[in-house]
Amino acid sequence: MTSVTFTLGQLADRLGATLRGAADMPITGLATLQEAQAGQLSFLANPQYRKFLADNQAAAVLLSPEDVEGYSGAALIVANPYLSFAQLSHLFDPRPVSMAGAHPTAVIAGDAQVDASASIGPYVVIESGAKIAAGVTVGAHCFIGARSEIAENGWLAPRVTLYHDVRIGKRVVIHTGVVLGADGFGFANDKGIWQKIAQIGGVLIGDDVDIGANTTIDRGALGDTVIGDGVKLDNLIMIAHNVQVGDHSAMAGGAGISGSSKIGKHCMLAGRVGLVGHIDVCDNVFVTGMTMVTRSITEPGSYSSGTAMQPSAEWRKSAARFRQLDDMARRLQQLEKRLAAVTVSDQDSSEA
Amino acid sequence: MTSVTFTLGQLADRLGATLRGAADMPITGLATLQEAQAGQLSFLANPQYRKFLADNQAAAVLLSPEDVEGYSGAALIVANPYLSFAQLSHLFDPRPVSMAGAHPTAVIAGDAQVDASASIGPYVVIESGAKIAAGVTVGAHCFIGARSEIAENGWLAPRVTLYHDVRIGKRVVIHTGVVLGADGFGFANDKGIWQKIAQIGGVLIGDDVDIGANTTIDRGALGDTVIGDGVKLDNLIMIAHNVQVGDHSAMAGGAGISGSSKIGKHCMLAGRVGLVGHIDVCDNVFVTGMTMVTRSITEPGSYSSGTAMQPSAEWRKSAARFRQLDDMARRLQQLEKRLAAVTVSDQDSSEA
Amino acid sequence: MTSVTFTLGQLADRLGATLRGAADMPITGLATLQEAQAGQLSFLANPQYRKFLADNQAAAVLLSPEDVEGYSGAALIVANPYLSFAQLSHLFDPRPVSMAGAHPTAVIAGDAQVDASASIGPYVVIESGAKIAAGVTVGAHCFIGARSEIAENGWLAPRVTLYHDVRIGKRVVIHTGVVLGADGFGFANDKGIWQKIAQIGGVLIGDDVDIGANTTIDRGALGDTVIGDGVKLDNLIMIAHNVQVGDHSAMAGGAGISGSSKIGKHCMLAGRVGLVGHIDVCDNVFVTGMTMVTRSITEPGSYSSGTAMQPSAEWRKSAARFRQLDDMARRLQQLEKRLAAVTVSDQDSSEA
Repeated sequence: MTSVTFTLGQLADRLGATLRGAADMPITGLATLQEAQAGQLSFLANPQYRKFLADNQAAAVLLSPEDVEGYSGAALIVANPYLSFAQLSHLFDPRPVSMAGAHPTAVIAGDAQVDASASIGPYVVIESGAKIAAGVTVGAHCFIGARSEIAENGWLAPRVTLYHDVRIGKRVVIHTGVVLGADGFGFANDKGIWQKIAQIGGVLIGDDVDIGANTTIDRGALGDTVIGDGVKLDNLIMIAHNVQVGDHSAMAGGAGISGSSKIGKHCMLAGRVGLVGHIDVCDNVFVTGMTMVTRSITEPGSYSSGTAMQPSAEWRKSAARFRQLDDMARRLQQLEKRLAAVTVSDQDSSEA
Repeated sequence: MTSVTFTLGQLADRLGATLRGAADMPITGLATLQEAQAGQLSFLANPQYRKFLADNQAAAVLLSPEDVEGYSGAALIVANPYLSFAQLSHLFDPRPVSMAGAHPTAVIAGDAQVDASASIGPYVVIESGAKIAAGVTVGAHCFIGARSEIAENGWLAPRVTLYHDVRIGKRVVIHTGVVLGADGFGFANDKGIWQKIAQIGGVLIGDDVDIGANTTIDRGALGDTVIGDGVKLDNLIMIAHNVQVGDHSAMAGGAGISGSSKIGKHCMLAGRVGLVGHIDVCDNVFVTGMTMVTRSITEPGSYSSGTAMQPSAEWRKSAARFRQLDDMARRLQQLEKRLAAVTVSDQDSSEA
Repeated sequence: MTSVTFTLGQLADRLGATLRGAADMPITGLATLQEAQAGQLSFLANPQYRKFLADNQAAAVLLSPEDVEGYSGAALIVANPYLSFAQLSHLFDPRPVSMAGAHPTAVIAGDAQVDASASIGPYVVIESGAKIAAGVTVGAHCFIGARSEIAENGWLAPRVTLYHDVRIGKRVVIHTGVVLGADGFGFANDKGIWQKIAQIGGVLIGDDVDIGANTTIDRGALGDTVIGDGVKLDNLIMIAHNVQVGDHSAMAGGAGISGSSKIGKHCMLAGRVGLVGHIDVCDNVFVTGMTMVTRSITEPGSYSSGTAMQPSAEWRKSAARFRQLDDMARRLQQLEKRLAAVTVSDQDSSEA
């Protein structure tokens, strides 16, 4: 790992934090409360980790005004310690910085526009009419298809593929293996034979979007597949053709959105959530892990499906009974009727 | 986007359609009924969109003989509008056309056979004994392993990997990130330690197969993994070693087939369907999204598993009860017995 | 396919097997009992295939001392036929052997250390400070990030990406499309806007690990994501930041482990199993396919969730009733109370 050092005072200035402790204390890294060692800055964001505060070995801790009470060690007092930690994390990021200019092995079409401040890695291929704006990094082995565009300060890891007519906003981060603009899954069935429908739309990605490793976003059949500003996508996610994802929504690993579905703003889909096609999910919806979303959601809130884990021997019994559920429900109803009848007749007989 | 123009008459000729309207009307693109603008051709395939027909702005519409009745605008009358739309879509596809010949940066083994009409992109690697037939496109950064073969008119997007001994039929379309012929997941357990079993089979892909982005098809352990003619695979699908998929079957995104399972012809697996290994699914089976197929299917039809989505607070109650299902079923049975006994004794007492 | 020939005696020597049959019998390949043809060696490991032993066409069969009784053909008698088959499989592996040295197109940083016996394929990029040990194969189009290290005798397929600070043990096998060290999915929410947390940890992979095609293992947020010795990962698996996987555990295709979860030693996760974050799974746990693991597991054993497949028409009824389960359970309880009351009153009346 590379190493950098800041003083506690420098970090306080950067955050606008209230400093408690020596301003010249050197900080060489960040760590959790349990793992922090001398020279490292830690933070307390989740109340369940408060128990680790007393005995921590960190040089100083990012704390809220409430949590700093009763704590005697060095601290940076901030309104939102987790957010402050996020801001400082970039100072200690060992990711190599890319240099402006194109590697001599890059194959760049004559009519592509590549800003002089962009960094184009080895073996990159940039096709006709593509545009790479100022401050963009295009990692090794990336492929930028015809007429595709990457706006200012984007960062593409090695081996990202953009097909043709993919437009990407500012400050977008795209990880290795991502595929933007592959064909949507569109076929017309002709007496049992699938006939391909050319996917002639594109992909439109907003500003400040992050896309995780090996995620795929297909091009539209007609019109674009659209990802809003500030959307965060984890790894191995599948976004089908003509999906629309609203601003500042987030999806964890393995989520999958079928064709033409629309997701609102500020939604969160946990890992492996799946949506069927042609449905709408409104703003501010949270969906728990591995849920199958089979219909539109019109009310904000949290949604789930599936069953809870059991030891397999018990689960097999539950699963067998699940198949009998309708029968059980009918028998239950019948019992209620019969019991009501018995109770009445019983009352009759006792009244008699 | 690039643009092309056809006349309505040219399109009618191409489809063998009955033309209603001006034969010289220029058509510059395709669009849905809701989004079509002047100059664009639209179509009506799904009855639920019939409501958009009256007010559409399209230059002309692909219509069935039934739907054209009562419609006064320009139309191309065809038996199957969706299929005709599929056929015309290729005319308006902005995908760049590849040029015959190998890019000078391609690394091609001396004994590989590459047809002069094939297009080999930048930084492609083709290994010993591979064969690339006439009319094939191999996109940038593709890797074609030893002895692998691609038959006539295949189209490989940039960054597709074929290991050794992978044979691909005619007119196959393979998207970025696809991996054909990686090792199947085969290990022998030796007192808790996994010992690798070399995967010495290959992969065999039929004609007219489409494979979506980041899908993986593993090589066989012994013998080949086999994908039939006309099979359509969406993105991020996993086909394990020695699986066989029958002709004209289709799988949506994220489907996964475990080792040695066989799927029949004309099957459809919706998104995220999973099959355990060593089972058989007969022809003409449809499996709904996210279903876990745990046993062979011997009858055509539609199959499902999982539970329907609920608000999380309600779902937690259902999920808790699911674990009690066997107990509930036993108590229900006991109630039935006891009530029968009561009813009898009640009858006895009332008869008495 | 390439072909090699050994004599039965050579194979017996290699395994320390008891030879029954002609030592000079030529063996040209391996096959299952059902498919074996003249010249091929087969094996009987799974008792359910014993029925194929009598009529098999193999030149010889790997058999346990028990199974060889009553079998009159040529055989290699060994304690564990499946393990012996695994050992012999590598002799017949048609995978091309890579040659020592770096392809002239490889772009290798001046301060990277690449052992002279390592094989570096075409268009590989190796960044500053990386270390490639003796006997390592780095396939075409691989990217080895800054300071990343691959220990002795590793084998990387074409197109594997290691970000910076990824350290890999000895004899590791990594398949195409694998991404090691992409950013973990870490963001702090600032009034609805996601602020990225730099992922400043690394990835640590033990010895003898296998990683399947298109699997992704993210770098730690703080500290490393850790994969133990002998771990086997299938395709399209997602390992999130700061996960720890214990030695000799195995996961089948599409498994997903959320951030900071810990999996013990000798665990097996079947296909598509998902774990939520921040939980612990103890040693020797088996989880069946597509199970959602929502809490820590503290006892060895087998665990499951989900429902069993049904014809869709029946499933829809079960799924509808699942939503009513809590209501059903309450009604069942009430019935029990009411029936108890009736029975008592009935007994009262009959006693009267």
